[in-house]
Amino acid sequence: MSLVVVGSVALDTVETPQGRADDAIGGAALYFSLAASFFGPVRMVGVVGQDFPRDMLAELERRGVDLAGIEHAPGKTFRWSGRYHEDVNVRDTLHLDLGVFADFAPKLPASYRDSTYVFLANIDPVLQASVLDQLRAPELVGCDTMNHWIDASRPALDRLLARVGLLTINDEEARMLSGERNVVRAAAKILAMGPQAVLIKRGEYGVIQFAGDSVFAVPAFPLEEVTDPTGAGDCFAGGFMGELARSGDRSARGLRRAIVYGSVMGSFVVEDFGPRRLLQLTRDDIERRYRQFVSLTDCSGA
Amino acid sequence: MSLVVVGSVALDTVETPQGRADDAIGGAALYFSLAASFFGPVRMVGVVGQDFPRDMLAELERRGVDLAGIEHAPGKTFRWSGRYHEDVNVRDTLHLDLGVFADFAPKLPASYRDSTYVFLANIDPVLQASVLDQLRAPELVGCDTMNHWIDASRPALDRLLARVGLLTINDEEARMLSGERNVVRAAAKILAMGPQAVLIKRGEYGVIQFAGDSVFAVPAFPLEEVTDPTGAGDCFAGGFMGELARSGDRSARGLRRAIVYGSVMGSFVVEDFGPRRLLQLTRDDIERRYRQFVSLTDCSGA
Repeated sequence: MSLVVVGSVALDTVETPQGRADDAIGGAALYFSLAASFFGPVRMVGVVGQDFPRDMLAELERRGVDLAGIEHAPGKTFRWSGRYHEDVNVRDTLHLDLGVFADFAPKLPASYRDSTYVFLANIDPVLQASVLDQLRAPELVGCDTMNHWIDASRPALDRLLARVGLLTINDEEARMLSGERNVVRAAAKILAMGPQAVLIKRGEYGVIQFAGDSVFAVPAFPLEEVTDPTGAGDCFAGGFMGELARSGDRSARGLRRAIVYGSVMGSFVVEDFGPRRLLQLTRDDIERRYRQFVSLTDCSGA
Repeated sequence: MSLVVVGSVALDTVETPQGRADDAIGGAALYFSLAASFFGPVRMVGVVGQDFPRDMLAELERRGVDLAGIEHAPGKTFRWSGRYHEDVNVRDTLHLDLGVFADFAPKLPASYRDSTYVFLANIDPVLQASVLDQLRAPELVGCDTMNHWIDASRPALDRLLARVGLLTINDEEARMLSGERNVVRAAAKILAMGPQAVLIKRGEYGVIQFAGDSVFAVPAFPLEEVTDPTGAGDCFAGGFMGELARSGDRSARGLRRAIVYGSVMGSFVVEDFGPRRLLQLTRDDIERRYRQFVSLTDCSGA
């Protein structure tokens, strides 16, 4: 299956209790692509400015990421800087400069239009919909969003959700979108909006998927230290969609396996600043942690 | 195996967003015993006043709870009243009257001294230790505690923990006891204090067990409504220790199965006020939900 992702590409400056990183490559589409590339080829749609490091683009291509959909615009790459607290679920944005991302209007090259698996990372739902309009016959559409769009672009988001198969969202956003505190009720309301499955990300507590009558929960991998949480959700999505596109198995079992692979990728990226850990990762590391995840929750023989 | 529990017996008045209950029977030892009684006989140690309903004592006996260790003291039963918020993890204590519990000094009847499985519910660690002193040859000692004792009775608690096999504790208490925010580091420090296993209760996110190098996580059962969270942790402990005492299987596999049964019992009690749901429960209900728990986390075939 051919997988395409659209979303932000950024340069991040991050402070955490463990240290800091300056101008690390980041953004949702980049983290997604790096994670998904361990499972198969990925087509990327986004925009970078003249300051984006060329060697990192070459590195992405070396990993099987197709950059035909990356627009090179005059100006500066989207920059974000933030500070994480001791409680890594809390972060402050220190500085935000949209740069060339401010005028981003995703245009898919002709070579991308036959993509069957698509992930719409967190951008304006109007732009997310425009990507779907450019695809000939998408088979599986995954989507992320955030509080800003839930609040400010609800009609566009509602129209988009009717076209989406899988929504990944964090627990706070699930509450906002549904108006329900309880996760079961929140998921039921979200499923009624369109998606066949909703995957609610609960940070250090893992992920819970609701799909029809089926519920599947995976805890987060217990790590001694979370160095930098940036990109965890996007790497989850990348591992998840990457594995689905690799296997083409959209059965309940295939979805569960993909959710565990997503959790594996999310658990690796937070071990170091920016994408550093992903850049050192091997397929063996991934398989080893996959088995640890299975063992972490295995009560089947019990 | 013969199972004994020591702890509070109370009359609770509870308000939640779903309604209220007045003078419901409660207390840690009572919830524990009710839950454990589905798995086998339980011996209970505690104190009640003259106002404790006789018919409920008869009901406990009918369920195989041995009340030889229940002291009947002149005066009033321990009374607690509290209010839960929309976020059920937050509660206010409205009123507290220790009554006969103020002078509680657990005395084990001769018929209890051969108990091999013991659960020390949350009371003064000095009293918890005095229970161990009265047992001839305990094989498995489970223990609960709370922020008050961690703060105010640390030396006694430290001495007790050296004699304990399994500690059940919530995440906030685990942080207090260890001085570590991160759950992996907190668990490592707690294991160094004595227990062979620590079970950290994470409310709506379930339970995570650390035992040697092994980690096991069970999500909470996703419920549409939590009517009254009172007793959830004690029913978890009752199901857990009850199943362990029934099977006598303290292998890693036996512990995991017991943790799932504990989670099952905790998930039932919160469905109605006080112990109402437990009083209607059947063994079939328990087995059905056990299978749902296994399915909820099953990625083994994936």
